[in-house]
Amino acid sequence: MHSSVSAASLAAALARVATEVEAALEDLLPPVEGAEARLIEAMRYASLGGGKRLRAFLAMETAALFSVDRRCAARVGAAIEMVHAYSLVHDDLPAMDDDDLRRGKPSCHRAFDEATAILAGDALQTRAFEVLAEADTHSNPEARCELVAALALAAGARGMVGGQMIDMVSEGQALNAEQITRLHALKTGRLIQVSAEAGAILGRAASAQRHLLAAYGRDLGAAFQIADDLLDATGTTEETGKTAGKDEAAGKATLVSVLGVERARAQAEALADQAARHLECFGAKADLLRDLAGYVVSRRN
Amino acid sequence: MHSSVSAASLAAALARVATEVEAALEDLLPPVEGAEARLIEAMRYASLGGGKRLRAFLAMETAALFSVDRRCAARVGAAIEMVHAYSLVHDDLPAMDDDDLRRGKPSCHRAFDEATAILAGDALQTRAFEVLAEADTHSNPEARCELVAALALAAGARGMVGGQMIDMVSEGQALNAEQITRLHALKTGRLIQVSAEAGAILGRAASAQRHLLAAYGRDLGAAFQIADDLLDATGTTEETGKTAGKDEAAGKATLVSVLGVERARAQAEALADQAARHLECFGAKADLLRDLAGYVVSRRN
Repeated sequence: MHSSVSAASLAAALARVATEVEAALEDLLPPVEGAEARLIEAMRYASLGGGKRLRAFLAMETAALFSVDRRCAARVGAAIEMVHAYSLVHDDLPAMDDDDLRRGKPSCHRAFDEATAILAGDALQTRAFEVLAEADTHSNPEARCELVAALALAAGARGMVGGQMIDMVSEGQALNAEQITRLHALKTGRLIQVSAEAGAILGRAASAQRHLLAAYGRDLGAAFQIADDLLDATGTTEETGKTAGKDEAAGKATLVSVLGVERARAQAEALADQAARHLECFGAKADLLRDLAGYVVSRRN
Repeated sequence: MHSSVSAASLAAALARVATEVEAALEDLLPPVEGAEARLIEAMRYASLGGGKRLRAFLAMETAALFSVDRRCAARVGAAIEMVHAYSLVHDDLPAMDDDDLRRGKPSCHRAFDEATAILAGDALQTRAFEVLAEADTHSNPEARCELVAALALAAGARGMVGGQMIDMVSEGQALNAEQITRLHALKTGRLIQVSAEAGAILGRAASAQRHLLAAYGRDLGAAFQIADDLLDATGTTEETGKTAGKDEAAGKATLVSVLGVERARAQAEALADQAARHLECFGAKADLLRDLAGYVVSRRN
């Protein structure tokens, strides 16, 4: 893979976005007084102070290609991170993956309780769409509607939640590589893809540019998911901050179990290269996004 | 209460809206093939073929005041009914109210399973915002953004979900009338209020008219909730299609338990009268909405 900027520059850019999106989330989810305080606490617990902020990074750095105001882009990044956080909260519930650990901390229903976790996930999703629809996100209401519709399509029954459903009904079944690829494209791919498209929507980019960024996000997301499965299969709980080996324990088919570690790793690297190639027309401005593709397949957590 | 049209006209209008919103929901939630079919089935199970469609009626009949295209209004009614349906699915979960019966049928997690019910609720919420953001809902994207933002505000942590949280943390506590009124204003009132506001948003009404319709919806929603609690306290499971006496069994404070049946009934009627008075400036065009206020406090199911 062609590396355009130093690993240190990418790390600095990731840290900068993490700080910006954290500030945006703080701003968009202020603590409250009263009987509903517990709900907001759980929403903040699930969304603040954790994660790589990969999705926010994609939204903000694709927006930077079109010189979009960083505060607007940070709102969009925060909204997408809220949807991601809600999906993790619900995914960890006893009736779903029943996971006690998330980002190295007790999962939301362990830190609070099941009812609070269900409601906090629900309200994080609602808040995400509210934020996108508000005038502070973009001066053009058409852009805001496109953001709402694109995020909903990516997160709903034909996207992330559809993928979670397939994941649940497929447990213990021997899926083939094609079925696994589709499952992951829905469950994690669509949200990563729409994160990369978000900058084009914010920047009112030409349709061809939006499609290139969507293709970048799609291939990056696929590479990321295989890398995640490799980490689950080969990493430790300490390194990754979540329960290691849980896919195998849950009888979940992954490309790693079907293809083996070496072929899965080769496929992740090929997808990352392919992702980077969609960015050619953006020139040096897209160096961070290009290097991100290399990073997602080499990361250790 | 001043009754402007016959009970038969109101019943016919309610039936007409129920048919229109059912058709819209069928159109917006088509069945699918494949591994995710179960998710869509559960979404359809939870949202089609049931309920009074009070919220859709409010959206469509307030829209009619401004001669909004009925197909556009039906999309908004359907979106609000999806949010209502999602809230019932999650409310019925074992970790929440643990209710086996809804609209005379097994609740969603009993008909399917818990994981499917969680995901179906999640995806119904997502689809609601997607529908509102799509161009078919209104030619003006500013109107669509206002619908998304208003529904999100009503449904989220400062509205419906906040009310559900208060309801959960207050179980077994002796709330006073003021606390109960606030709980209900959030848990059920805000969604009914935004349903009545939706017509003003669709009709690009002057702010004063939007405020009057919001006030109508607020008072109607409060009357409706007390009427619902009266039915729970005095009705049978057969009449209401849901488990009777469940508020008392769950140790939930209602205005009926605090004020007694007679004072609660008087308050519901006073609120219904007040709701109708907000409609004065709309003249005879608002007769159905006026009569609806009488209906919600006299209904038997």
